[in-house]
Amino acid sequence: MGWLADESGLGKCAANHVALTPLSHLNRAARLFPDREALVYGKVRHTYAAYHARVSRLASALAGAGIAPGDVVATILPNIPAQAEAHFGVPACAAILNTINVRLDVHTVSYILDHGQAKLVLVDTQFLPLAEAALAAMEGPKPQIVEVADPDSGFPATGRYPEYEEFIASGDPAFDWILPQDEWESIALNYTSGTTGHPKGVVYHHRGAYLSTMGQVVSWRMVLHPVYLTIVPLFHCNGWCHTWMMPLLGGTVVCCRHVDAKSIYDAIADENVTHFGGAPIVLNTLIHADDADRRAFDHTVEVFTAGAPPPAATLAAIEPLGFNVTQVYGLTEVYGPGTECLWKDDWDALPSKERYAIKARTGVVMPMLEDCTVLDPEMRAQIDMDGAAQGEIMFRGNAVMKGYYKNPEATEKAFEGGWFHSGDIAIQHPDGYMKIVDRSKDVIISGGENVSSVEVEDVLMHHPDVLLCAVVAKPDEKWGEVPCAFVELKPGRQLTEAELIAFARKELAGFKTPKAVVFQDLPKTSTGKIQKFELRNQVRGG
Amino acid sequence: MGWLADESGLGKCAANHVALTPLSHLNRAARLFPDREALVYGKVRHTYAAYHARVSRLASALAGAGIAPGDVVATILPNIPAQAEAHFGVPACAAILNTINVRLDVHTVSYILDHGQAKLVLVDTQFLPLAEAALAAMEGPKPQIVEVADPDSGFPATGRYPEYEEFIASGDPAFDWILPQDEWESIALNYTSGTTGHPKGVVYHHRGAYLSTMGQVVSWRMVLHPVYLTIVPLFHCNGWCHTWMMPLLGGTVVCCRHVDAKSIYDAIADENVTHFGGAPIVLNTLIHADDADRRAFDHTVEVFTAGAPPPAATLAAIEPLGFNVTQVYGLTEVYGPGTECLWKDDWDALPSKERYAIKARTGVVMPMLEDCTVLDPEMRAQIDMDGAAQGEIMFRGNAVMKGYYKNPEATEKAFEGGWFHSGDIAIQHPDGYMKIVDRSKDVIISGGENVSSVEVEDVLMHHPDVLLCAVVAKPDEKWGEVPCAFVELKPGRQLTEAELIAFARKELAGFKTPKAVVFQDLPKTSTGKIQKFELRNQVRGG
Repeated sequence: MGWLADESGLGKCAANHVALTPLSHLNRAARLFPDREALVYGKVRHTYAAYHARVSRLASALAGAGIAPGDVVATILPNIPAQAEAHFGVPACAAILNTINVRLDVHTVSYILDHGQAKLVLVDTQFLPLAEAALAAMEGPKPQIVEVADPDSGFPATGRYPEYEEFIASGDPAFDWILPQDEWESIALNYTSGTTGHPKGVVYHHRGAYLSTMGQVVSWRMVLHPVYLTIVPLFHCNGWCHTWMMPLLGGTVVCCRHVDAKSIYDAIADENVTHFGGAPIVLNTLIHADDADRRAFDHTVEVFTAGAPPPAATLAAIEPLGFNVTQVYGLTEVYGPGTECLWKDDWDALPSKERYAIKARTGVVMPMLEDCTVLDPEMRAQIDMDGAAQGEIMFRGNAVMKGYYKNPEATEKAFEGGWFHSGDIAIQHPDGYMKIVDRSKDVIISGGENVSSVEVEDVLMHHPDVLLCAVVAKPDEKWGEVPCAFVELKPGRQLTEAELIAFARKELAGFKTPKAVVFQDLPKTSTGKIQKFELRNQVRGG
Repeated sequence: MGWLADESGLGKCAANHVALTPLSHLNRAARLFPDREALVYGKVRHTYAAYHARVSRLASALAGAGIAPGDVVATILPNIPAQAEAHFGVPACAAILNTINVRLDVHTVSYILDHGQAKLVLVDTQFLPLAEAALAAMEGPKPQIVEVADPDSGFPATGRYPEYEEFIASGDPAFDWILPQDEWESIALNYTSGTTGHPKGVVYHHRGAYLSTMGQVVSWRMVLHPVYLTIVPLFHCNGWCHTWMMPLLGGTVVCCRHVDAKSIYDAIADENVTHFGGAPIVLNTLIHADDADRRAFDHTVEVFTAGAPPPAATLAAIEPLGFNVTQVYGLTEVYGPGTECLWKDDWDALPSKERYAIKARTGVVMPMLEDCTVLDPEMRAQIDMDGAAQGEIMFRGNAVMKGYYKNPEATEKAFEGGWFHSGDIAIQHPDGYMKIVDRSKDVIISGGENVSSVEVEDVLMHHPDVLLCAVVAKPDEKWGEVPCAFVELKPGRQLTEAELIAFARKELAGFKTPKAVVFQDLPKTSTGKIQKFELRNQVRGG
């Protein structure tokens, strides 16, 4: 449309067009901030010059190990420096980073490695048994393992695999990064349990990762040189893209292997942490910390919390401790956070109760997304912003995934009508601020982890005595939600709650295993569909 | 390169791809900050809701006046609200904004209108005589005039043309903006005097304008709700893209028709201005203000200064007044500022003299550009960063122009070797910070305005008595530089300095007219090329 009458000679060339990629941030930081601390983990302290060189070595070593552009490199790592380095080093050799949740069960990890066709996997020594079992269970070709030892945390190298430090030492610190030629090239593959049984592989492009970092700077009100603590696992939406963002600001990433009150307070007091993200459960951990684990500090720590609205009691207890909490909301499909409960100065003067009610809102769209609003799922029309009408939260913009890997049908369904369908039900206040009123029907969020009820049901259905089952979220003081199973047994069979839980635990990660089982007839519609709505009311009503 | 083994279903669609454009910022701001002040000018105070509606009316009225996508709409306006509104309203109907410098002479304005083929021009009442004369001198079809009256500043409507407020009142406040389908579509056309006689039309795309706003947020260390004073004329690189940036931050644009000490101090004290950009001459205006024009304020105002390094004496005088000055550097071709003298905390403790020496550096690349460095113009190799070796500053990245309008040859030359050639000569310190040591050979920067020496020479050469001439920059306490002409007369002719200046003034804007004329033989190379270098030494050496 907006093309001039004569556009001759006005096309793209090397001088005026570069594919957007977060790799540019680290390249720039290495030149502008070579001596600033980039990555900190206990005794490990890498400057930007060192970080860049290590990333280059990793990219070079991966290429040397046979990783070609377009190959998938997986990680099974906690938030240690190698995980941050992989965020740059893997795409720097034009490979795609597939960070795998270390809390998953063997079968799911095996499925992900097969589905993503990872050629190489970086594995923390603690999670080698998981990785080895998953590789053994794979159907297709198995990835090479590079072991990432963490001796200072009690995980020395086993000697069974090439160790990460030796591996990158073999790489060239002057390796010429393979930058994307097209910003739509893939940078990451993140499996989400979503609402169906099999995890779906959400594909990110370089463009979205770059734009997410630029927009979040505004949302977080960040200026240069923040100190960012990695509480959100980097295997969740690439840690909300924050590791990619930090070099833009010359910031410091402080790694945190164990998320406990002492580690967090120490990081704030010793490293001057200014920002972190985490589920409300993290806030409760800080509130209820032992006195011995607390540390004094004199700045305000900015916390972005997601997964559930922060309860008023949590806010009332955490604010006096020196934390300012902002709720954000998003999904793997939108690169992590996509909305924020953007604070208005006018609200400062409100009584606490009203302030906390506002802080519990899901909020408004962040700058990197074109739109996020609540639509009538049938009509594709904006719902009334009256605080009562309900609809589905939908996203549109450049920080929405490319789609699900090898699943065009699911992609098409997710993007129906030109919007990404979140599956979350919300109202909208007259000022446009959204508030989720109901979780997407099937997802249980336990300790910040998504649990697919369908996946749990699949496992339970394999028990010879189970006729029918339905798994719903049960509110839980510690975990936010836990899976609760409703089960109809086959006629004449007998089974105890403990037996079924033990059965499920063999197949499922701990956080996915039901914490309660109720044996009863399941409520059904006239067409036989189980009414999970009724069951949710039942567990909530007590 | 980074394409997964199977990319089926992972393409662009309405849900996951939106063309980058600064128009998105205003759309978002109207939804998130409807009641915040967006645009302020004396008694005029528009909220974001009103700003958005006025912009929509303008776009609608332009479409109603026959402006089609791809048409050029020009403005001859000082920094008044209509100029800010045009930055959104013109592209919102898919037209291209051509802001014309109000200080130009009739012939240049006429040339620009002919070359750009503007279909409509918004003209401030004060500049109607200029516009009318320029239209009269045009060779091609003349644009429609819409008059922008400013009665409160003494410029009531003449009644000769449709007046802006009536014009936009005829538009639809719910007009559906025509957003770009391709972010490479053109958004603005900015004529720069550059180094050749005829002004060249620098073309911006939506992508670059968007990315410049995102990167400058980081450079300016801006958080939400800045109050921005428009001292840099919006007809210079679209005011460094800042009017496009403000809605991203829910900021306020304070318009400033007259750049004088009283206006600036009043805006700081009354409107709480937090940021502005301007040439060092503006700082001197503030330093030397009459006591009656000064106002007290208790915050620090962030100033980005460009056009010349801020002199130590200026910094020493301005800092205690409550201003923090950062030098930026750029050109029309890179959307305004492209480098910044990024401050390091370590430098705070240095003695003033050393601090000021650092503040005089040209600095390092801003985030929206991939690279800006100093290359050997012949070899395309990075110069030694030893503070002594000289080379040419070159830029590469997404905030580099599309090219020069209807001038593919000049575009190709400017982008030779995959870099934009600035024409400015610089050294680089060991830390990578650049410092310009010599202006591009031919440009004179007078009061922040670029003056093409070639253009001035062309005019002088029309005088019947002039044989040969060369115009170079002469240092000037007030204007930074002024044009100084060296002239060889034809044999036997006689001419005075005053006569030649008066002759030039008839053809040239005041700031382009030589302030001094020296009659002498011109130094030449063996091939007859005039050695301007010698002449510059002569005016500097006295």
